[in-house]
Amino acid sequence: MIVLEDRKSLNDWVEQSRLRGGKVGFIPTMGALHEGHLSLVREARKSCSQTIVSIFVNPTQFGPGEDFDQYPRTFVEDKALLEDISCDAIFLPSPEVIYPPGGQTFITVEPLASQLCGASRPGHFQGVATVVTILLNLVRPHAAYFGVKDYQQLTLIKQMVRDLALAVEVVGVPIVREKDGLALSSRNRYLTTEERKQAAALYKALCTAKSLYKDGELRAKELEQAARGVLLESGIEQIDYVEVRDKEKLTSELTADDPVMLIAARVGKTRLIDNMVLST
Amino acid sequence: MIVLEDRKSLNDWVEQSRLRGGKVGFIPTMGALHEGHLSLVREARKSCSQTIVSIFVNPTQFGPGEDFDQYPRTFVEDKALLEDISCDAIFLPSPEVIYPPGGQTFITVEPLASQLCGASRPGHFQGVATVVTILLNLVRPHAAYFGVKDYQQLTLIKQMVRDLALAVEVVGVPIVREKDGLALSSRNRYLTTEERKQAAALYKALCTAKSLYKDGELRAKELEQAARGVLLESGIEQIDYVEVRDKEKLTSELTADDPVMLIAARVGKTRLIDNMVLST
Repeated sequence: MIVLEDRKSLNDWVEQSRLRGGKVGFIPTMGALHEGHLSLVREARKSCSQTIVSIFVNPTQFGPGEDFDQYPRTFVEDKALLEDISCDAIFLPSPEVIYPPGGQTFITVEPLASQLCGASRPGHFQGVATVVTILLNLVRPHAAYFGVKDYQQLTLIKQMVRDLALAVEVVGVPIVREKDGLALSSRNRYLTTEERKQAAALYKALCTAKSLYKDGELRAKELEQAARGVLLESGIEQIDYVEVRDKEKLTSELTADDPVMLIAARVGKTRLIDNMVLST
Repeated sequence: MIVLEDRKSLNDWVEQSRLRGGKVGFIPTMGALHEGHLSLVREARKSCSQTIVSIFVNPTQFGPGEDFDQYPRTFVEDKALLEDISCDAIFLPSPEVIYPPGGQTFITVEPLASQLCGASRPGHFQGVATVVTILLNLVRPHAAYFGVKDYQQLTLIKQMVRDLALAVEVVGVPIVREKDGLALSSRNRYLTTEERKQAAALYKALCTAKSLYKDGELRAKELEQAARGVLLESGIEQIDYVEVRDKEKLTSELTADDPVMLIAARVGKTRLIDNMVLST
């Protein structure tokens, strides 16, 4: 496995991979890798002859007061994990490699970017859209893999790729969960033992809503109320949102035909998100 | 010469051109072609084995009350002109081909986009940046050619291509002028005989400023004043701006080392722009 730190060495690798034929699969990450990320790499390896993971804690998607500085950086462990599953390359750029001085360009996806997580994290999705475009343009993969865990991010990237006619297939990969249902996240390591137990309530809330939906409850408000109840019962009170949305467009629907439920809540100081498609 | 109207046929042409090897040169236009556009194609043909011109009057770069509806559409003549100079392909998309329904994504280049022409045409450069990115992603050329006549547009596109790491070389091609110095523009055909005579004053104003600069006048305000004088003298009173700016970044400089002068003014109802690098 090769570690590429600048544009020149990345480009050489990309050119060689393309010459060799076969597909290049790309997995953009912020590092602090866990089984969720590894499942993306495994998925890429199924249909791509070359896989490349980027590790870049993107400053522009963190707001003031967010956890950019504390965000875990665990490169030695990340590298070992990727080597273990036969990833071909890591792109490990510094901020200057991604953002040469004097940049003025950003990408906006509206109204998708300003709702749900975007409402409480202004600028977040502009940062995500812009960095993903830069990374896709540098790596020029045939397919890019994103976790369904970040449902709004995945929806936004699909929308952007379609709108800008980017020549890449966007693949969403199912959430990997702990035994008690907690979705894997690099931020889970912030949780205390007590908070870790509480955090399983997000999954429980989603399952409760899904079960009600299966039993015929189609009213968004009722489903949201039930899920909120589960969170509150477990002591999670800082609920950012519990929303039933259209699965494809994330528009609000009073009675969605094919709905996804999305949750964001703070457990202690840690903001967690999770989601579940209710109709499958 | 082949005319491509949808993404599929364009993509087939692009794939074939790339397989054949050699460079693909791309010239995005809004049609109503004149010698200025043809000079872009000729420049492309010098270093590219395949040249493709897009003709698309992009609705998103026209503001309300601007000349989108009146903008000249002269496809039969355009096609004949391109055939004459051995252009290889025309991409002639409908708005739906460029903008499938439900689009949410746009590209902003700030502060470049909000000054000069951007100040009086809000949204114009967002429309330009976004459509150029879409076209570049669809055509995937090695090089793209733009007229220096639209100096701010060229600067903005260079900035955006750099910021987003788009894999294309941006080439600026010198202004083509009439005998009296008027820069060629599709909008010149709006001018009455009287206005057409007046319009030459833009070039005269630029030459006056350049001559003063060569004689040692480095103060932007004085250069601008002199150019304004020439415009007013010829009866051009609706001056949008006369500005001396840094040649590369278009920042305002009281005494620019390497300045360009940019002019936008209305002659009758027609808005004309022109520019000249003073230091060469």
